[in-house]
Amino acid sequence: MSRRYAILAPGRFAVDAKTAHGVIRYGTDEIVAVIDPSNAGRRVRDVLAYLESDAPIVESVAQALQFSPNALLVGTAPKGGGLPPEWRGAILEAIGARLEIVSGLHEILSDDREFRVAAGAAGTTIWDVREAPEVPLFAGDVYDVAAPVVLTVGNDCAVGKMSVSLELVRAARNAGKKARFVPTGQTGVLIAGWGISVDRVIADFAAGAAEQLVLYAAHEGADLIVVEGQGAINHPAYAAVTLALMAGCAPDALVLVCDPRRVTIESYPTPALGYAEAIAIHEALLKTLKPANVVGIALNTYGLKPDEARSEVARASEITGLPADDLVRFGAERFYQTIASRIVKRPPLTVATHR
Amino acid sequence: MSRRYAILAPGRFAVDAKTAHGVIRYGTDEIVAVIDPSNAGRRVRDVLAYLESDAPIVESVAQALQFSPNALLVGTAPKGGGLPPEWRGAILEAIGARLEIVSGLHEILSDDREFRVAAGAAGTTIWDVREAPEVPLFAGDVYDVAAPVVLTVGNDCAVGKMSVSLELVRAARNAGKKARFVPTGQTGVLIAGWGISVDRVIADFAAGAAEQLVLYAAHEGADLIVVEGQGAINHPAYAAVTLALMAGCAPDALVLVCDPRRVTIESYPTPALGYAEAIAIHEALLKTLKPANVVGIALNTYGLKPDEARSEVARASEITGLPADDLVRFGAERFYQTIASRIVKRPPLTVATHR
Repeated sequence: MSRRYAILAPGRFAVDAKTAHGVIRYGTDEIVAVIDPSNAGRRVRDVLAYLESDAPIVESVAQALQFSPNALLVGTAPKGGGLPPEWRGAILEAIGARLEIVSGLHEILSDDREFRVAAGAAGTTIWDVREAPEVPLFAGDVYDVAAPVVLTVGNDCAVGKMSVSLELVRAARNAGKKARFVPTGQTGVLIAGWGISVDRVIADFAAGAAEQLVLYAAHEGADLIVVEGQGAINHPAYAAVTLALMAGCAPDALVLVCDPRRVTIESYPTPALGYAEAIAIHEALLKTLKPANVVGIALNTYGLKPDEARSEVARASEITGLPADDLVRFGAERFYQTIASRIVKRPPLTVATHR
Repeated sequence: MSRRYAILAPGRFAVDAKTAHGVIRYGTDEIVAVIDPSNAGRRVRDVLAYLESDAPIVESVAQALQFSPNALLVGTAPKGGGLPPEWRGAILEAIGARLEIVSGLHEILSDDREFRVAAGAAGTTIWDVREAPEVPLFAGDVYDVAAPVVLTVGNDCAVGKMSVSLELVRAARNAGKKARFVPTGQTGVLIAGWGISVDRVIADFAAGAAEQLVLYAAHEGADLIVVEGQGAINHPAYAAVTLALMAGCAPDALVLVCDPRRVTIESYPTPALGYAEAIAIHEALLKTLKPANVVGIALNTYGLKPDEARSEVARASEITGLPADDLVRFGAERFYQTIASRIVKRPPLTVATHR
């Protein structure tokens, strides 16, 4: 059964409802309404034009019900992943209306006794997208995958690694490739309908989870595998997840996704890396795991004027000597065509080949 | 109540019973017997002299019981952390004899229905040392810790990072410091009686766990904090845990622990890093998080002849220009005295100080 989502993002829709935005732009499920009193009466397109959606924004779950949703999507993933307590009422109301509850929070809603009991009584279910399955340790089988693997990395969280990955896959398919997107976070999983939130896996097994995802995509017959990256290599909290993906996916090429306006990593004092620094540290690490290069820079110029955006694209390309573009804003085809020849399978390190 | 351990390591005691060895050498609990049929009749000292223990090695749980243990320690942590199925019988026998079961496996024994029911019936308990508590996300509070933080890193797993950390703490205490060991793995937790197996924490929270551990040590009044490292920065499976510790502990200095005979990372094709490479990649990463240098090389020369060991120590020092020694074999005092002046508090990165 396909989902007809009401998306819960009270007060957050225009601010940081990354999950909501991703599902609206890239998902195949229908969005019937967004619940956000601070924008009620408008349409999604009026608030965020690039989402290209006419879904109405309403005040409450009760109002959303007139559009006949069959699922409520918790539309944001706040830092730490807890459920804002003031959202409990809306979720219970949706359960009472027999909507399926779909959540990408770290806080597992089906572990919550009140939600579980209510869902049981109403005869509906809770899908905790982020709940990770048990996975094996990294085994090295990923080194035998024939299709080249591209991993997106970035200068911070929430700069557009998932969007760039999806745009690259779309462009590669338009160019005739059997390209496959590999979801590694809750929004990606919601969009693709499979995958693992690698950040939710027990640390020892995170690289193993990444390996399993690439193996699955290869098994499905992909000839190009594009893995959604997570975090940032110098993110004080999430760097471990970034490195688990770099090790576990054994990428053959990286695409560096940067929001040029980031000064620090989220709200930490840690400075966000510049283009050259970011390329150097990722390539130095991969040299110790399985060598791969950054083959292009995908910029997130959202909020910059068109001429500012084009000038930043030119600057990134000049500094790095690599193709650069904003794939969401200016389209991914040209960028993909430029980097395609650089995406080639590279063998794993062995003692014999190591210097 | 203090523990009197029988240690279960059938067929593994001389091979890879890292947990057993650590607890015997550095723990404060009594070891009354080791269960390993392949060495039965000998004493621990006869098999592994450096453990300096006269505990008898016996054939079975039944034989161990004559030495009045009150706890059974599962003495090894196999790759992936599962319980070897052929050990179930011994554990059930120990439960039947009302021993507490203490395990550092990833596989949580108290989640096993048969063990749980048996323990309940016998009136004894199961302590899963590796089970991780819920921890907050990394917050940056660790940047305010006044005591310098030293983190051990290494060229592979199981090269002696915990032992070196414990030896450094002992030497620093002998020199009058209020030094504190921070345990980050199951053996360290067993020895110190507190800590978190960081490899068992959900990946997003692993750096947060490391931060909490350092904050705890600081709160206890330490003026030098030595954190046991995990994995290796280019370990295909465990690199994420290594980096979580580098980010979460915000170390002021690193000690690089190397087994010079490692050619590859465990059984992966990935080459183990040489001294200079290892220093370069760790320092490059920390430069993006909070700058810190490697201040010395602690070698694990176990198995080398004394002259070979001394020559390798000299070679490491010559290549790196840093103090080098085997702290377990030759004592930690001299090494500690040499590096002490280099262990100084270093401020966190901020945008203002970043280049």
